[in-house]
Amino acid sequence: MAWNTNLRWRLPLLCLVLEVAMVVLFGLFVRYSPDADSSWSNEKRKGNITSDLENEFYYRYPSFQDVHVMVFLGFGFLMTFLQRYGYCALGFNFLLAALGVQWALLMQGWFQYTKDRLILLGIKNLIDADSCVASVCVAFGAVLGKVSPVQMLLMTFFQVALFSANEFLLLHVLEVKDAGGSITIHIFGAYFGLTVTWILYRHNLDHSRERQSSVYHSNLFAMIGTLFLWIYWPSFNSAMSNYGDAQHRAAINTYCSLAASVLTSVAMSSVLHKKGKLDMVHIQNATLAGGVGVGTAAEMMLMPYGALIVGFICGAVSTLGFVYLTPFLESRLRIQDTCGIHNLHGIPGLIGAIVGAVTAAYASPDGDRGFVYPFGFHNEKDEKVQGRFQAFGLLLTLAIAMVGGTIMGLILKLPFWGQAMDEDCFDDSIYWEMHEEKSSSPEDHT
Amino acid sequence: MAWNTNLRWRLPLLCLVLEVAMVVLFGLFVRYSPDADSSWSNEKRKGNITSDLENEFYYRYPSFQDVHVMVFLGFGFLMTFLQRYGYCALGFNFLLAALGVQWALLMQGWFQYTKDRLILLGIKNLIDADSCVASVCVAFGAVLGKVSPVQMLLMTFFQVALFSANEFLLLHVLEVKDAGGSITIHIFGAYFGLTVTWILYRHNLDHSRERQSSVYHSNLFAMIGTLFLWIYWPSFNSAMSNYGDAQHRAAINTYCSLAASVLTSVAMSSVLHKKGKLDMVHIQNATLAGGVGVGTAAEMMLMPYGALIVGFICGAVSTLGFVYLTPFLESRLRIQDTCGIHNLHGIPGLIGAIVGAVTAAYASPDGDRGFVYPFGFHNEKDEKVQGRFQAFGLLLTLAIAMVGGTIMGLILKLPFWGQAMDEDCFDDSIYWEMHEEKSSSPEDHT
Amino acid sequence: MAWNTNLRWRLPLLCLVLEVAMVVLFGLFVRYSPDADSSWSNEKRKGNITSDLENEFYYRYPSFQDVHVMVFLGFGFLMTFLQRYGYCALGFNFLLAALGVQWALLMQGWFQYTKDRLILLGIKNLIDADSCVASVCVAFGAVLGKVSPVQMLLMTFFQVALFSANEFLLLHVLEVKDAGGSITIHIFGAYFGLTVTWILYRHNLDHSRERQSSVYHSNLFAMIGTLFLWIYWPSFNSAMSNYGDAQHRAAINTYCSLAASVLTSVAMSSVLHKKGKLDMVHIQNATLAGGVGVGTAAEMMLMPYGALIVGFICGAVSTLGFVYLTPFLESRLRIQDTCGIHNLHGIPGLIGAIVGAVTAAYASPDGDRGFVYPFGFHNEKDEKVQGRFQAFGLLLTLAIAMVGGTIMGLILKLPFWGQAMDEDCFDDSIYWEMHEEKSSSPEDHT
Repeated sequence: MAWNTNLRWRLPLLCLVLEVAMVVLFGLFVRYSPDADSSWSNEKRKGNITSDLENEFYYRYPSFQDVHVMVFLGFGFLMTFLQRYGYCALGFNFLLAALGVQWALLMQGWFQYTKDRLILLGIKNLIDADSCVASVCVAFGAVLGKVSPVQMLLMTFFQVALFSANEFLLLHVLEVKDAGGSITIHIFGAYFGLTVTWILYRHNLDHSRERQSSVYHSNLFAMIGTLFLWIYWPSFNSAMSNYGDAQHRAAINTYCSLAASVLTSVAMSSVLHKKGKLDMVHIQNATLAGGVGVGTAAEMMLMPYGALIVGFICGAVSTLGFVYLTPFLESRLRIQDTCGIHNLHGIPGLIGAIVGAVTAAYASPDGDRGFVYPFGFHNEKDEKVQGRFQAFGLLLTLAIAMVGGTIMGLILKLPFWGQAMDEDCFDDSIYWEMHEEKSSSPEDHT
Repeated sequence: MAWNTNLRWRLPLLCLVLEVAMVVLFGLFVRYSPDADSSWSNEKRKGNITSDLENEFYYRYPSFQDVHVMVFLGFGFLMTFLQRYGYCALGFNFLLAALGVQWALLMQGWFQYTKDRLILLGIKNLIDADSCVASVCVAFGAVLGKVSPVQMLLMTFFQVALFSANEFLLLHVLEVKDAGGSITIHIFGAYFGLTVTWILYRHNLDHSRERQSSVYHSNLFAMIGTLFLWIYWPSFNSAMSNYGDAQHRAAINTYCSLAASVLTSVAMSSVLHKKGKLDMVHIQNATLAGGVGVGTAAEMMLMPYGALIVGFICGAVSTLGFVYLTPFLESRLRIQDTCGIHNLHGIPGLIGAIVGAVTAAYASPDGDRGFVYPFGFHNEKDEKVQGRFQAFGLLLTLAIAMVGGTIMGLILKLPFWGQAMDEDCFDDSIYWEMHEEKSSSPEDHT
Repeated sequence: MAWNTNLRWRLPLLCLVLEVAMVVLFGLFVRYSPDADSSWSNEKRKGNITSDLENEFYYRYPSFQDVHVMVFLGFGFLMTFLQRYGYCALGFNFLLAALGVQWALLMQGWFQYTKDRLILLGIKNLIDADSCVASVCVAFGAVLGKVSPVQMLLMTFFQVALFSANEFLLLHVLEVKDAGGSITIHIFGAYFGLTVTWILYRHNLDHSRERQSSVYHSNLFAMIGTLFLWIYWPSFNSAMSNYGDAQHRAAINTYCSLAASVLTSVAMSSVLHKKGKLDMVHIQNATLAGGVGVGTAAEMMLMPYGALIVGFICGAVSTLGFVYLTPFLESRLRIQDTCGIHNLHGIPGLIGAIVGAVTAAYASPDGDRGFVYPFGFHNEKDEKVQGRFQAFGLLLTLAIAMVGGTIMGLILKLPFWGQAMDEDCFDDSIYWEMHEEKSSSPEDHT
C-alpha cells in the first residue's frame, strides 16, 4: 500500500494554522526593543548617548545579513547537490526557515528576552532566531530526500522549542560559553537529526540509490551554498559576541580555522582516492568543518595558530568521516545520513566543544599567556570549574538532542504525514509541479 | 516581412551617445558631497564632529551594498527562469541598470539634491539611484522576452526621468511617507510596465509558448535571484530611513512580513494545485510579496504582528494572482505579463499603500498605542490629513505611470528598434552569439 | 609518454607540509592586534576612546566581507565558464586562496606589520591578505585548464611572497599611492600570470579546443562570478582607504566607473560582431574593466565624471582586446591566456596606473580644482614628483612580475607536477572523481 503524498489539504492547513498562531502570539507578546522603538530618542537622552551609531543596529546589522544569507541561501544551495532534489532542497529549507525564525523569536524571547511579559524585538533577536534555525537546517540535512514538507514543519516546530530550552539551560543556567554555537547549534542539530533519521530508517532506500547521487551541474549549484557558508562563517561565529575585541577576535579565529581546513580536506580527499582524485562531496562539506570546530572558542584567546590547529584537525577528520564513517553508520547502525551532517556538524562540533572546555580551563585572567580568557566569569567560578561546566553542557546537550530526536522520530514515523515511498525518495516530482516539456532539453540546443 | 534584429549600429550608437551624454552632464553638474569630498576634515571641524564614523558612509554603506546586490544580481537571476532567455535576462538587466543608475543620479539629483546648481554625490544618492532602477527592473519583468536591448535603453531613459518626477511630487510636494517604496517604486514600476506591455500586445505569442516555460536548472538559477531579493529586502526597505530606531524598525518589520508571506505562498500554491503540488513560480515570486507590501509602512510603528499580517495577506493574494489573474489579464485584457509583476509588485504594492495610509491615519504622536507614527509630520498636517495625502499620492502615481506607460509603449511600438518577431521571442540566440557546438552537451558526459 | 596525473601522494603531502609550516610560523610570529586582543579595554582607556565603535572592526568589516566574497566566490565562479572545468575552477581557486591568505598574512606581516618581531593580526591584515590573493586569482586565469593543483600551490606560494615584496617596495619605499591596487594587484598578477603561461606554452592545445568553449549553463554560472565582482568592487577599492571621505569617495568613483564600462562593453561587443550580436565573454569580463582602471585613483579627487571617463575607456579597450589582442597573443607571441586576463587586468591596469600618475601630478593641495589630491604627501615630495614615482612604481612592478613569472614558469615546466597532457586539458575528470552515472541526465527528465 502506497502512502498518500497528495498534500493538498494537510500542507496548506498546517501552514495557515501555524501562521495564524504566530500572528496571535506576536500580537500578545512581541513589541519593539528600545533601540527599534519610537522611544529611542528618549532612550538616547536618558542614557546620555550622543550618536545614533550607538544603536545596536549599527554594531550588528552587517553580521546579521551575512548570517541571514547563510541560513536561507547557504544551507539551501548546499543541499542542491542531489541530481533531482533541488526544488525540495531550496523550497523546504526556505519554508522551514521562514517558520523557524518566527517561532524562534517567540521561544527564545520567552526564555531569554522577556520584560514585563513582553518580548522586545531588536537586531539581536533576529540573529539569535537565524542561528536557532541553522540548527534545524543541520538536522534537515540528515533526513533530506526522505521527508515531506509537513514532516519538516512539525520537526521545525518541535526542534526550535527544544533548541530554545537547551540553549537557555546552557547559556543562562550553566553559563556555558558558546559564541559560535558548536554545542548549542551544531551538536544539538546534528544529533537531533541523526536520531530522527535513525528512527525513520528506510529498508529499501537503495531503490532510489541512483537519484541519491549528484550530477555535474548539481555540484556547481551546491558550491554556491558551500562558498557562502565558508565566506560568511566569520560573521556567524562573531555575530553575537560582545562589542569590540571579542567580535573582532571571533572573526579572525574563524577566518584562520576555515582556511586551514580547506588544505587538510583537499589532502585527505586526494590521499583516500585510489587514483588521488578529489571528491566534490569533501570539498563541499569538509572545508566548512573548521568553522564548526572553532565555534565555542571563537571569541576566546585561542590565538591564530590555535585556530589553525583546530581547522587542520577538523578538515582532516571530517573528510575521514565521509569516507569511512558514513558507510559504517548506514550499514551497521542503520543511520541514513543524506548530507553527512555527522561529519560536518557532529564530529567537528564535538571537537569544538572540547577545544572550548580546554581553552576555558587554561584561561588566565591577566591575558598574557597563550590561552587566555578575555571576559570575566562570575566571581564564584574559577577557570577549572568553567572548563567542567563546558563539558557538562556538552553532555546535557547530547542527551536532550537524542531523547528529543527519538520522540520526534516516533511522531514523524506515523504514516499520514505525506512522506514518499522508499522508491520515490529524492525526487522533486513527488511534491512539485514539474512543467514537463515534451521537447528537447536546453542543453541540446547549445 | 520580418523586422531587422541586427543591432550592429543601432545598439552601439545608442550606448555610446548615452554614455557620452552622461560624461558631459556629470562634468557639468556632479561633484562630491561634503562627506565624500576632500573638505571632509574641515566639515568635521566646523560641525564639531569627533569621529569619522559620523560620515554617512558608515551608516549606510552596508545597506547600500545589499540593495546593489538586489538590483544587479537579484532581479537579473530572478528573470533567468525562462529556459532559453538567461543571457538576455542577465545581460539586459545589467545594461539597463548600469545606464539607469547614472541617469538616476542626474535626474534625482536635479529634483532633490541640487545645491548651487550642482549635484553633490554621496552614498545616499547611490542608494536612491539603485532604488529608482529597481522600478525599471520591475517594469522589465512585464516585457521580458519581447523587447530588444535598444527598446530597454529607451524605456530606462524615459522611465527613470518619469520616476524621478513622480518621486519628487510624492515625497517633497505631497510629503507622502514611503520608506520602502511600495508606491514610488513598486506600483509605479508595475503599472508603467503593464501599460507598456499592453500597448505592445503580440497576437501570436503562443508561437513561442514552448520557450516561455522553464526547465529544471533554469528554475534553480532563478532561485538565486529570489533568495537574494528575499534576504536583502530588509536592507532595501530600511536603507534610506532616518538614523537610529527608524532604520532598525524598518528592517525588523520587513523581516517579519517576508517570513509570513513564505508560509501563505506555500499554503496557497499547494491548495490551488489539484494534486497539492507546489509550483516553483509561486515560490520564486509570491514569497517576496511581503517585502513589497510592508514597504510604505516599514519604518512606521506597524508592530511586529502588524508586519506578519501584511505578509500573510500579500503572500496569499500574490499566489492567487498567479493562478487566476495572470491568465485573465492575458486572455481578456491583452496584457502579457511575462514575469507576473502584477502579482508580485502591483497588488502587493497597492496593499502596501493602503497599509501605509491607514497606519499613518491612526498614528498617535505620543507613541504608546499600537499604531504609532514615530517621526513628526509638519505641524500643519495632522494624522488624518497625512492618511489622505498618502491615498492621493497613490492615485497620482497610478495616473502618471499609466499615462507615461502609454506614451512609452507607443514609442516602442515603432518598428525600427530591433524587436523580434512573435515566433522569435524568448530566445537568446536573436541577440547573442551562442558559440554553438556540434558535440554533445556536458550533461551527456556526466 | 604521458605524464602521471595521479596526485595521490604529491598533492596531500604538499598540502600537509604547507599547512604544518603555517601552524608553526603562526605560532612563532602571529598574535592579535590591540583591537582584537583581550587588552582592548586597556587600549580604550589609554587612548581615551569612549565607544567600542572606534574599534577598527566596525570601520572595515563590511568591506572585508565584500572582498572575501569577491576572492573566494567571484573569481571562482567567473572561471566556471568552461563547459567541463567548473570543479577545477571552483575547487582550485578555493584551495589556492585558502593557502594564499595564510601565507599572505605572514609575508605581508613581515614586510609591513611587524612589531617586536610579532605580526599583530587585525581586520586590516585580513583585507590585505585577500587583496594579495586576488592577484594570484588573476594569474590563475591565464593558466586555467592547463595546470595541476600541485602547480597552483607552488605558484601561490611563490607569487604571494613576490607580491608582498613588490607591494612593500611600492607602498612603503616609493610611497606610491594605489588604493584599489591597479598596479600592485592587477598589473602584477596579470603580467606574472601571462609570463608563466608564455613559458608553459603548449603546442597541441587545439586538441582540447572543443572543451575550451562554454555551454549555455556554464555561462550562467560564470555570470554569478561577474555580478558579485562587479557589485562588490566599490568595496574592494575602498576597503583599505583612510577613514571618512577617502573611503566614501573611493566607493563612489568605482561605482561610477563600473557603470560606464558596462555601456561601452556592450557597444563594442555588438559593433564588432558581424550580425551585431553580443558575446557573453565580453559581458562577463569587460564590464569589470572599469573597476580595475579606477583602482589607483579611486580615493583621489578624480571627480565623478573623471571616473566615468576611465570606465568608458576601459570597457571599450577591454572588449577590443578580447576580439583582436587575445588571438594575436596566442598565434604570434605564443601566450595562451585562457580567461583573457590581459584584457581585464593587464590593459585596464596600465590605464589605471597612468590615470593615477596623472591625477597625482595635477593634484592641488587646497582641493578646489578638478584634480585634487586629498591627503598630504610627505613634505619633501611635491605633486610632480609624486606623479613620477607613480610611473616608476609601474615600471618596477612590470619588471618584477615578468622576471618572477619567468622563474616560476621554468619551475612549473618540470615534468613531475602532475600536469595534464595537451589533449587532456580543460577537463575536470583528470583531477576529480566524477560519480559517473549510466542513466540519463537530469535534463532528460525535464
